[in-house]
Amino acid sequence: VHRPAARAPTSANDDELALVALLAGIRPAVRADADDVRNRLDTLTKPPGSLGRLEHAALRLAMLLGDPPPPLRRRSILVFAADHGIARRGVSAYPQAVTAQMCSTIAAGGAAICTIARSVDSALTLVDVGVAAELPSLPGVLQRRVRAGTRDMVDGPALTRCETIAGILVGAASVQERLDDTDIFALGELGIGNTTTAAVLTAAILHVDIATVVGRGTGLDDAGVERKLAVARAALDRVAARGVTDGALSSGMDDPLDLLAELGGLEIAALVGAILAAAAAGRPVVIDGFIVAAAALIAARLAPAARDAIFAAHCSAEPGHAVQLDALGLHPLLDLDLRLGEATGAALALPLLEAAAGVLREMASFEAAGVSNRIAPCE
Amino acid sequence: VHRPAARAPTSANDDELALVALLAGIRPAVRADADDVRNRLDTLTKPPGSLGRLEHAALRLAMLLGDPPPPLRRRSILVFAADHGIARRGVSAYPQAVTAQMCSTIAAGGAAICTIARSVDSALTLVDVGVAAELPSLPGVLQRRVRAGTRDMVDGPALTRCETIAGILVGAASVQERLDDTDIFALGELGIGNTTTAAVLTAAILHVDIATVVGRGTGLDDAGVERKLAVARAALDRVAARGVTDGALSSGMDDPLDLLAELGGLEIAALVGAILAAAAAGRPVVIDGFIVAAAALIAARLAPAARDAIFAAHCSAEPGHAVQLDALGLHPLLDLDLRLGEATGAALALPLLEAAAGVLREMASFEAAGVSNRIAPCE
Repeated sequence: VHRPAARAPTSANDDELALVALLAGIRPAVRADADDVRNRLDTLTKPPGSLGRLEHAALRLAMLLGDPPPPLRRRSILVFAADHGIARRGVSAYPQAVTAQMCSTIAAGGAAICTIARSVDSALTLVDVGVAAELPSLPGVLQRRVRAGTRDMVDGPALTRCETIAGILVGAASVQERLDDTDIFALGELGIGNTTTAAVLTAAILHVDIATVVGRGTGLDDAGVERKLAVARAALDRVAARGVTDGALSSGMDDPLDLLAELGGLEIAALVGAILAAAAAGRPVVIDGFIVAAAALIAARLAPAARDAIFAAHCSAEPGHAVQLDALGLHPLLDLDLRLGEATGAALALPLLEAAAGVLREMASFEAAGVSNRIAPCE
Repeated sequence: VHRPAARAPTSANDDELALVALLAGIRPAVRADADDVRNRLDTLTKPPGSLGRLEHAALRLAMLLGDPPPPLRRRSILVFAADHGIARRGVSAYPQAVTAQMCSTIAAGGAAICTIARSVDSALTLVDVGVAAELPSLPGVLQRRVRAGTRDMVDGPALTRCETIAGILVGAASVQERLDDTDIFALGELGIGNTTTAAVLTAAILHVDIATVVGRGTGLDDAGVERKLAVARAALDRVAARGVTDGALSSGMDDPLDLLAELGGLEIAALVGAILAAAAAGRPVVIDGFIVAAAALIAARLAPAARDAIFAAHCSAEPGHAVQLDALGLHPLLDLDLRLGEATGAALALPLLEAAAGVLREMASFEAAGVSNRIAPCE
């Protein structure tokens, strides 16, 4: 079931080998039989299916972790931050300096994700994978910068293959270092301009019209959206001219790693690695919004079984998010019209997933509770 | 703004006076100015509006509790249980005995709400307002039975006015006894047959076609839904013949207390009282599904300002729930296709409301954090 990257590593350096090993460790989630879990859910003291999407989440957790799933109380939120070369083209409502400024705000505890992390009793770590500006040493911030922002993807490749894999491994290591004391991960990001990058990646991977996945991001006006769309099209045209996105697998160029290198960004690469590492460890990982879902698409293309570890938190106001979740076959739990990022939606879903696991772990069966089951349809 | 019950108390007994006093204590939530809170939300380090419905919840919490709202960590879930005379007409997929059996299951910790209460760190209390079968003395269960189930609303009034008010006061007392150690309440119910009662109440109060608010409840088949609809129509016809639901306020008969007495049930009466008591104390109260929303409609009819204290958790799979939430002007936070009751949805929303309060309490402003604000729309 596992499919490695479409193109074999072109050099045998350590990073390439580490990525190959990571991908090779990802297996489908089969720690419980789906039909057995469904049957058991229907024996519990509730009308069959009455816990709705929570039951589907419970089923997927059982397949990943075993039935019953263990508690999911040791929570870790990872926010990956990086800058994007295309930010200079006016694709965001905010200047690029905001990426670094928001890193400081998160370190100081004043950002939305800080508040939400406290409200869901989760650890929170910010990882600088590629912020453009120098950051002072900040508490709770991991300095893992691969380079100071990506290159402008309209002019040329955003990253080298080597930088791309380094970014992936930063994300993987961030998860691996926390496996011993984390039951569940929530992933988010920070990076001015990154809805443009995520839109281009999504269009290239899913072969959908770029116009259907470009949105207002942090709050562009109509003219801003037009400018963003033109930038996205220019990047796609450049990459298409190189043959990376011609969609023909036979050409050997439809490689998600190549796309990630051509388009960026480093926080997306790190998110790919974090998802892959969580999947390899059989640990549930909750994805946030449009940018993290773009990373999930790449992770699932690199290793389709990785999808079994991924849980969707919410469907954001960014129009491409629903397209991505549909392609991933994931159903979100929250309906909050969020469009902030920073893992806010993923973090808010953490108590819901603990509740889903608790259903299988703690609820009584009709028989054990001595409760009458359904009566025949006619009186 | 406060409007007392449409009909003045017909006797001066203590319960009637207690209800009048309760209603008189309910005031609109104006502890913060809405525009001031909206403006402050837009100064916080996030794109304006990017926390979606969480920001709307934060605004409403600030108006109810002051800006910033205090923590909402001391949580109390109240589940009111009662039986319905119409259960004998085959309006549910389960026999009436299940109401009492599920009370025992909740007391033993094996019901869905027990699991979810643990997952959101909330106290949980079950209140027997009118279960038909004898219940043994159970831990964590308050014995406040008004009568052993309602009468059959097709044959005659389900409750007397006196019983109805007694039920309301049971609910009010359940909240009032917990005000000292509760920041936020979540309300739910348990009662075989009560989606039929809630549907009839909703149709009568909102003057909507009963067919649009009758659903499958715990899982009726098509024939069961037809039977349920016929029972609901028979109850409405009987009440209409008495002039209670002619919709003409001038007749003095469009009194929500009269409707509640004619149709029942005791858990719905208690939920009305719990909502009114929370509103009178200025304490937020999260409503669960279709049955609790029917109680919210009655509470808001008795005292329109009560609505300011009510927060919608989710929109259930029961079709009438969206109709009720629309009439109440409330927007749910969760999208889980729940249809279980027991306060499960309300409980799951508790961490979201704490997060909403935390946004106003803990987030930094752009200015304080030294973060650049939005740039001009053109480059």
